[in-house]
Amino acid sequence: MLVQTLKGFRDFLPQEAKKRQYVIQTLKKVFESYGFEPLETPALEYKEILTGKYGDEGDKLMYTFQDNGGRDVALRYDQTVPLARVVAQYQNELSLPFKRFQIQPVWRAENTQRGRFREFLQCDIDICGTKSSLSDAELLSLIYKGYSSLGFESFKILVNDRDLFKNLAQKAITIIDKIKKIGEEEVIKELQEIGVSSEVLEELLSAQKTDSLQDITSQAVLLGVPESILVFEPTLARGLDYYTGIIIEVEIDGYTVGSVGGGGRYDNLIGMFAGKDIPAVGFAFGFDRIMDAMEEKNLFPSSVGNDDILVTIFSPEYLEDSLSLLSTLRENNITAQIYLDPQVKMEKQLKYADQKNISYVLILGPEEKEKNRVTFKNMKTREQIQRSLQEILQLLAKN
Amino acid sequence: MLVQTLKGFRDFLPQEAKKRQYVIQTLKKVFESYGFEPLETPALEYKEILTGKYGDEGDKLMYTFQDNGGRDVALRYDQTVPLARVVAQYQNELSLPFKRFQIQPVWRAENTQRGRFREFLQCDIDICGTKSSLSDAELLSLIYKGYSSLGFESFKILVNDRDLFKNLAQKAITIIDKIKKIGEEEVIKELQEIGVSSEVLEELLSAQKTDSLQDITSQAVLLGVPESILVFEPTLARGLDYYTGIIIEVEIDGYTVGSVGGGGRYDNLIGMFAGKDIPAVGFAFGFDRIMDAMEEKNLFPSSVGNDDILVTIFSPEYLEDSLSLLSTLRENNITAQIYLDPQVKMEKQLKYADQKNISYVLILGPEEKEKNRVTFKNMKTREQIQRSLQEILQLLAKN
Repeated sequence: MLVQTLKGFRDFLPQEAKKRQYVIQTLKKVFESYGFEPLETPALEYKEILTGKYGDEGDKLMYTFQDNGGRDVALRYDQTVPLARVVAQYQNELSLPFKRFQIQPVWRAENTQRGRFREFLQCDIDICGTKSSLSDAELLSLIYKGYSSLGFESFKILVNDRDLFKNLAQKAITIIDKIKKIGEEEVIKELQEIGVSSEVLEELLSAQKTDSLQDITSQAVLLGVPESILVFEPTLARGLDYYTGIIIEVEIDGYTVGSVGGGGRYDNLIGMFAGKDIPAVGFAFGFDRIMDAMEEKNLFPSSVGNDDILVTIFSPEYLEDSLSLLSTLRENNITAQIYLDPQVKMEKQLKYADQKNISYVLILGPEEKEKNRVTFKNMKTREQIQRSLQEILQLLAKN
Repeated sequence: MLVQTLKGFRDFLPQEAKKRQYVIQTLKKVFESYGFEPLETPALEYKEILTGKYGDEGDKLMYTFQDNGGRDVALRYDQTVPLARVVAQYQNELSLPFKRFQIQPVWRAENTQRGRFREFLQCDIDICGTKSSLSDAELLSLIYKGYSSLGFESFKILVNDRDLFKNLAQKAITIIDKIKKIGEEEVIKELQEIGVSSEVLEELLSAQKTDSLQDITSQAVLLGVPESILVFEPTLARGLDYYTGIIIEVEIDGYTVGSVGGGGRYDNLIGMFAGKDIPAVGFAFGFDRIMDAMEEKNLFPSSVGNDDILVTIFSPEYLEDSLSLLSTLRENNITAQIYLDPQVKMEKQLKYADQKNISYVLILGPEEKEKNRVTFKNMKTREQIQRSLQEILQLLAKN
């Protein structure tokens, strides 16, 4: 038996898992502070719910199979289509506008490469049920707050209006969307190959913000988004053809792997399920890219999980003393753990504390017991002092 | 297209999702305070990693299929086998004892019934790498703390030692395990049907705690678990045959649906992957049962998400005033949202606040503007007062 994970699938060991939790918690707090509410949907859906919404490419990358009951099922491919189903299915229970966030994994049988996996977390915010420009502006404000809260200081929110593409075929849009990767000349060449005049690109490049986009960005500024961060980019198209209004991408200055999030307005998708139009606008924080960029820019707080206390066991005879010491700490609401094997030598227990990044260690052996003291060791400075239990409690309460 | 979820799969709308988050957060905090660290593993694994570990019944209930690359894969069936794989695969990176918690969904093609679903959250704690009775005791202490933190006041931790069954066939164990459901007489009858003497049951019923179990429970008491909560139950067997030492189940007094968590020591499972013995002990908090029992006992705090503030928009002409009011609130770290459609009448905006359980509403219309005031409305008492922005800020800062 090969002991391994599938290609494109990842284990997250504690150090990494803690960082992921930090990002999730930070974003969740921001989402909640804007009145967004959590939603969870199943990993598996009826296949017909998901297919046909992401284009041929999407259908090809979808994990689909027959379950034991012979149903055609598919693994969640994104969180937008399940949201559309939910809004349609519970129309009478959900009061609109419905502002929800959703943070769950999705699965895509992609070719794997740097930063592209077959299982990855999505982190979505969407507002359903209103066409008002204010909802777009509030979304931009939340996007700004989200990246700022993670510690990013220098980033851009690129915006465009799908309306600029209204006379263009999807093929031409796909080519223009690649302009940053392949350059203007190549775009013109590829456009000509499909019989589209190069003037199309020139017109786009000199286009002005639409009135609707102007409204949205002015309101976003009133909501506190610095004007310099909102950048109108008339060639920004984004792949999916279900967008109907504003489209959004976020780029971190100096992070060259690609955009760290994207979204836009999609007024017709929910109607496919609901049988009536329910407009919506949404954005997905690109979780893996954000993690990657935060590593690069060293934005994770160093303190994450480092203020632990380990109660050691001097030897099996002193087990009861250490247990009651631990109990006392916990009764005083001091977070502490105990080394779990009384047979193991002190040296190895201290090494364990180092490996686990534990900051403080308590030792209670014959010497300490005689003096009615506990040894308190700072694992970073290696300093140690002996104090009474009462003094230790005061010391730790201050920490 | 039928707009629905698969049988046994659930959507969690905001109200329910918030309660789930509350339980997860509460347990996570407790786990972390005991020095347990988070782990995440993939939803999909090579099928051969998972099969053969849960008995024939388990293999039958597993979701398996071939992926696009022709690999036989299976959806996570529990979190213990993936943990065993991880501990084996990263032996050199993980310092033992390894104490991890894991909170992810698992999938089983069960017959659905009350409280039994095909996708459900598991909430596991495990200690790998030591046989010491102290690790079992610490686990019991954490279990006690976990249920207490959720607000359960009256519950029992049933414990037994698998050693009591060492001379019994698995078939007999499975029968004895049903004693609470079917009663003593029926157990004796079924045992006789497979040729096992009724004395076996009598012996079990009068059995004493093993020395090992005695050690564990005394240490758990030293760690603060009330003695009355730890109940020795010699007929407790638990289905899975991979247990090798202590077995544990938790029952809430007055909650009759069934146990709300279970686990035990399994010293041989990781060895199946690691090629050498790595002992382990673990416990799974039964998430859905816990949610169910908390509803029954009314243990969810009523405050969850109820202290929101909604800034209304008197009419489109007052949009800018409301936007700058919202901005000021947020700059002062006051959590607030805005009604997202300036065209909608005040009455409907207030109704929206009620539907979303929002506690306070701010109104800024012509009257307020003239007086340089803001109306502050308490949605519960329906009282409203007019105050200056500065006073409103002070008022809300105190909330």
